[in-house]
Amino acid sequence: MPDLSALPHVVVIGAGFGGLAAVRALAKKPVRVTIVDRNNFHGFQPLYYQVATAGLEPEEVAHNVRDIVRRAPNVDVRMGTVVGIDMEVQTLAFADGPDLAFDYLIVAAGAETAYYGVEGAETYGFPLKSLQDGIRLRNHVLSLFEDYNVFGDALSDGTLTFVVVGGGATGVETAGALVELYRISLARDFKRFDTRRAAHVILVERADSLLAGYPEDLRAYAKEKLQRRQVEVRVNTAVKAVTENGVELENGETIPSKTIVWAVGVEASPVAKMLGVETGRVGRVKVRPDLSLPGHPNVFVIGDMAEVEGQERLPQLAQVAMQGGKHAAQTVLRSVHAKPSEPFAYTDLGSMATIGRNAAVAMLFGKIPLKGLLAWLAWVFVHLMQLVGFRNRVNVFVNWVANYFTYDRAARLILGSGRNDRGPRFRDPA
Amino acid sequence: MPDLSALPHVVVIGAGFGGLAAVRALAKKPVRVTIVDRNNFHGFQPLYYQVATAGLEPEEVAHNVRDIVRRAPNVDVRMGTVVGIDMEVQTLAFADGPDLAFDYLIVAAGAETAYYGVEGAETYGFPLKSLQDGIRLRNHVLSLFEDYNVFGDALSDGTLTFVVVGGGATGVETAGALVELYRISLARDFKRFDTRRAAHVILVERADSLLAGYPEDLRAYAKEKLQRRQVEVRVNTAVKAVTENGVELENGETIPSKTIVWAVGVEASPVAKMLGVETGRVGRVKVRPDLSLPGHPNVFVIGDMAEVEGQERLPQLAQVAMQGGKHAAQTVLRSVHAKPSEPFAYTDLGSMATIGRNAAVAMLFGKIPLKGLLAWLAWVFVHLMQLVGFRNRVNVFVNWVANYFTYDRAARLILGSGRNDRGPRFRDPA
Repeated sequence: MPDLSALPHVVVIGAGFGGLAAVRALAKKPVRVTIVDRNNFHGFQPLYYQVATAGLEPEEVAHNVRDIVRRAPNVDVRMGTVVGIDMEVQTLAFADGPDLAFDYLIVAAGAETAYYGVEGAETYGFPLKSLQDGIRLRNHVLSLFEDYNVFGDALSDGTLTFVVVGGGATGVETAGALVELYRISLARDFKRFDTRRAAHVILVERADSLLAGYPEDLRAYAKEKLQRRQVEVRVNTAVKAVTENGVELENGETIPSKTIVWAVGVEASPVAKMLGVETGRVGRVKVRPDLSLPGHPNVFVIGDMAEVEGQERLPQLAQVAMQGGKHAAQTVLRSVHAKPSEPFAYTDLGSMATIGRNAAVAMLFGKIPLKGLLAWLAWVFVHLMQLVGFRNRVNVFVNWVANYFTYDRAARLILGSGRNDRGPRFRDPA
Repeated sequence: MPDLSALPHVVVIGAGFGGLAAVRALAKKPVRVTIVDRNNFHGFQPLYYQVATAGLEPEEVAHNVRDIVRRAPNVDVRMGTVVGIDMEVQTLAFADGPDLAFDYLIVAAGAETAYYGVEGAETYGFPLKSLQDGIRLRNHVLSLFEDYNVFGDALSDGTLTFVVVGGGATGVETAGALVELYRISLARDFKRFDTRRAAHVILVERADSLLAGYPEDLRAYAKEKLQRRQVEVRVNTAVKAVTENGVELENGETIPSKTIVWAVGVEASPVAKMLGVETGRVGRVKVRPDLSLPGHPNVFVIGDMAEVEGQERLPQLAQVAMQGGKHAAQTVLRSVHAKPSEPFAYTDLGSMATIGRNAAVAMLFGKIPLKGLLAWLAWVFVHLMQLVGFRNRVNVFVNWVANYFTYDRAARLILGSGRNDRGPRFRDPA
């Protein structure tokens, strides 16, 4: 390997879609790169709900970061949790190791679940922002069916009622996948009771329709399709509190449930606050048109964390993060070559949400609406193509094809990392 | 489904090799069957060391029990932990649910790790008896390499020294797989240091040779092969204590290490003690030649838990459990048809241990020795054929073939079930 120490050091925080896109653009270029993440893997976040509903295995939606950057000699990986950024001396502080100095910094730490101060939501709700969230929800859901198998109606009401809060893409996808789980796969697993009669999914949305941002007819299609698949869709319904035994609505009603999936909102990663600058709505960092931090032309903030000066707020999509990461990386390279930066312009390649087997909605390039089987096939194609790593893709493909033709699901393991346990049912409120 | 309630109820404790073999023999027969396990999956225990060394994913060595018995209308599954057996009224008590009555009982709860009172072994050692054990060890080993990447020589001695205690098949296989992990796969993952120089595996065995029970030349071959692959093999070496920072030997020496893999011994499951009868060596239950409990012709104990009256103690192998499970099931069916029982006779189909790619030892039918590539191919064939479930087999095959040709390893995720954590490093000593 050539001597890299003389090259400018670019540190990228976050191995999500944005961070990896930046690293790809910097690979084998005249810079030294370190990508920092608290996990040792890149997670394919749009499919975490598939892990939660036992459709895909964790390994099928995650890939080792070192493996991804293996062939780039100028890219190294640091696993660690960033706890501070010193903009003066240009170093990162870690919870678990020595400081790391940077010449350029690309902050791509993404977003975390927002609870908007709803009482009990953080303690008793099930978010879907990390791979561990997906595993935790899977263990929980499968365990409830095992409980019902043993105790039946002796259990409290709502044991098999699954409430999904939030009618965006994640909420719609999770609700659709939960129904498929118990109407098809678990229905054959359990012989002592009919899972199709015992279980119930309720999708709760504060606004008056699902999938805000999609055209009217796609929103109507999604709602009708979910309803035909037995999802109870409740729009104009706001949540007041989440407890261990259900959800309290603002209209005073309580829905008994052990499973409140919190698919409702996100706020920028706490890393945003470490930059010492003004943050906007949901904690986003205001950046200049070239994605740099005001007053710090060598620091860039991208994806879910950024709000670009003079532009509309961009949606929380992998595409936004990937294009932003690539742009920031190119700006770094221009700076290395003493060239001025250029403004970032987002190209809308489209967005999509799947309701289940054969059914999805999509907006291609922000203007071509698509629904039904065709949209679903487009969704499958796009997601398979994006999954990082050859083997991952093959495995996912084998599993999905098998799933499709056998109406079966993956291994459905209840598997915590503790010793023979099911994992903690609720998060420690502390 | 026909009315099953009039049929005799056979309860099988344990969904391991023995329990499943019993259930298979009882499927679609004139009995009602409930298989009980604390997990909702059958684990392929001989390959847990592959999970621990990031060679296979957890889902590739485990399969949902309900899925396995799906096509047998007379077989149901109960997930739960047995805490007591009332032999008088013939019921099982559970930690987590109502009692379960039985007419016949087949106890196939297997074995757990034995620590032989070695100080610190249970707290700081890493056993390999459960799938969770495998995941825990994988997270731990991969995390140590990440630590070394950040801190390097500033870490205490022995951070990348892996001590495997026990020179039986599990110990030999784990030592061989650990070496392959860091000499091939991780060597390409880490760019800042040479994992092949930094890491070290020591295999410690109390007796004067590895693989007790195998012929002399196979034992010599295994030792030499491991040594050629850089495993330090220490025979005639007994362990006195395990601490957080290493292992103390009886000769007074201390080996600094953060990873003491405890592959040394097993004792019968605590379920054995619930039978209220005499237990023999390592907690095994003494059973009559037909595998029934003395005085209880409707209760059978098989596999790792049983010591058959008048027979040599059988080895802890899947084959023994499977043949015992089948025999017990057939005895139940003979009893249902008012026929007398027959004694159990074990047919030795062979045993094998793999040292790594291309290298294994095997004793076919207890008398044909095999070593090297041929033994390894036999090992691959036998293990693939035994893995339960079509899809599991295909996935494992795809992964292994990919592994073989690319010298690569699986996803290598550091993934606890907690939120963004690496999982607990050591077991809670409490």
